[in-house]
Amino acid sequence: MMQNTLRHRVEWGETDAAGIVFYPNYYRWFDRATHELFRAAGNEVDTILARGYAIPIVEAHANFPRPLRYDDVIDIESRVVEVRTRAFRIDHRIVCASEQVCLGYEVRAWVRLKAGGVLEAESIPDELRHLMT
Amino acid sequence: MMQNTLRHRVEWGETDAAGIVFYPNYYRWFDRATHELFRAAGNEVDTILARGYAIPIVEAHANFPRPLRYDDVIDIESRVVEVRTRAFRIDHRIVCASEQVCLGYEVRAWVRLKAGGVLEAESIPDELRHLMT
Amino acid sequence: MMQNTLRHRVEWGETDAAGIVFYPNYYRWFDRATHELFRAAGNEVDTILARGYAIPIVEAHANFPRPLRYDDVIDIESRVVEVRTRAFRIDHRIVCASEQVCLGYEVRAWVRLKAGGVLEAESIPDELRHLMT
Amino acid sequence: MMQNTLRHRVEWGETDAAGIVFYPNYYRWFDRATHELFRAAGNEVDTILARGYAIPIVEAHANFPRPLRYDDVIDIESRVVEVRTRAFRIDHRIVCASEQVCLGYEVRAWVRLKAGGVLEAESIPDELRHLMT
Repeated sequence: MMQNTLRHRVEWGETDAAGIVFYPNYYRWFDRATHELFRAAGNEVDTILARGYAIPIVEAHANFPRPLRYDDVIDIESRVVEVRTRAFRIDHRIVCASEQVCLGYEVRAWVRLKAGGVLEAESIPDELRHLMT
Repeated sequence: MMQNTLRHRVEWGETDAAGIVFYPNYYRWFDRATHELFRAAGNEVDTILARGYAIPIVEAHANFPRPLRYDDVIDIESRVVEVRTRAFRIDHRIVCASEQVCLGYEVRAWVRLKAGGVLEAESIPDELRHLMT
Repeated sequence: MMQNTLRHRVEWGETDAAGIVFYPNYYRWFDRATHELFRAAGNEVDTILARGYAIPIVEAHANFPRPLRYDDVIDIESRVVEVRTRAFRIDHRIVCASEQVCLGYEVRAWVRLKAGGVLEAESIPDELRHLMT
Repeated sequence: MMQNTLRHRVEWGETDAAGIVFYPNYYRWFDRATHELFRAAGNEVDTILARGYAIPIVEAHANFPRPLRYDDVIDIESRVVEVRTRAFRIDHRIVCASEQVCLGYEVRAWVRLKAGGVLEAESIPDELRHLMT
């Protein structure tokens, strides 16, 4: 399965008035980690994506056993764990100082970007399915 | 159970290059809707929160059956559906043009903000539990 | 000149660990206020914009004489103050509790969105110029 | 003068429906670059900041001669160019593919974080002034 680890240092602007990370930012990190996962998979995947496809979100979940603060260094470990006909699932695990601080997943669809901004679900191409699994 | 509806018009800055809403923004809306839910519950709840407590996220989930675009007007319907000893759950349902476009929930803890930025879980006070249920 | 006032209540997610608004959010508000300014100007302006044009930023400035905090209610007063051949300037003034807390401006270009995502500067059409001034 | 360069790859979530970077993100980058500038200056500066001080924004400006898109790799070159009694100025220059795509600055105050969230302007300590200049 495709997998990748992304390192990040918590930014000042990602905190809130309670001094901890404002939680929608975890999903920003998930999104970025998924894009990095595809990039890390190499030119072939990038090329497929560049042909007018997108991978919009279908479902997203996360738990947050302990908060993160400014300057914390985290590793976001991401991997494709399931590839269905028109959708796939990526698990994300965030680790800080050897402790798991977030566990989540995204389900994303495979869609073609059509004229007028229309998104049309399609079957994941065999070549991409092969690279993912 | 406490409940509230928040109206929002999708902002330009909430979209991405695919022309649809970048999904972490749904969780920003959830967070805002939860704060509005507490505000709508009246001064008593505000006062309790102001006494040095916070309601950090424990878990969050959402599905996204269809995308939203710039200028879409949405209603975020939020209600407390469960109150445990030290945590509670809020369900959020987003409707656009009479169609459900997102269904999600948040689980939040009840914590005291202590010196040095420490968050300490506490039992939800009876007066707040009473207002929530 | 076109002008509009937008009311906003500072959101929890707009604050940072110092307990004040994280400053890039002021520019998010400017952007939203500019879009509301065009909406308030009525269907004619909306229609012109919908014909495949955009108003990307050229320059933006702001000062911040005093910080804002969670729950502060602000008014963002916006008006077009200058219309050049291919660009225009909007001034934004933010007031909280009768006190000016931010003064800024945006200069924006008038561009056509062409195939392949190309942005091409064009002269502001007379009908729009007329509505703006 | 203190200076530092921060490399960044434009994230999907930083774009908008016109396919270019939503401009408040440039100021997010400025803020992050300023924090990295202080980090790069070493432990001494970090220590001073950790003693209960903050550097809130007083003024910020930027121009945007050409737009940025998803996946563009940028260098944010930052340096302290002026140190006044209670404030200092950082210039930021963003370069992409050898071309200057943004030129801006921030003026920030030196404040003590007091009890109850009060921010009190103070003179920049000599040791910090020495490191900055």
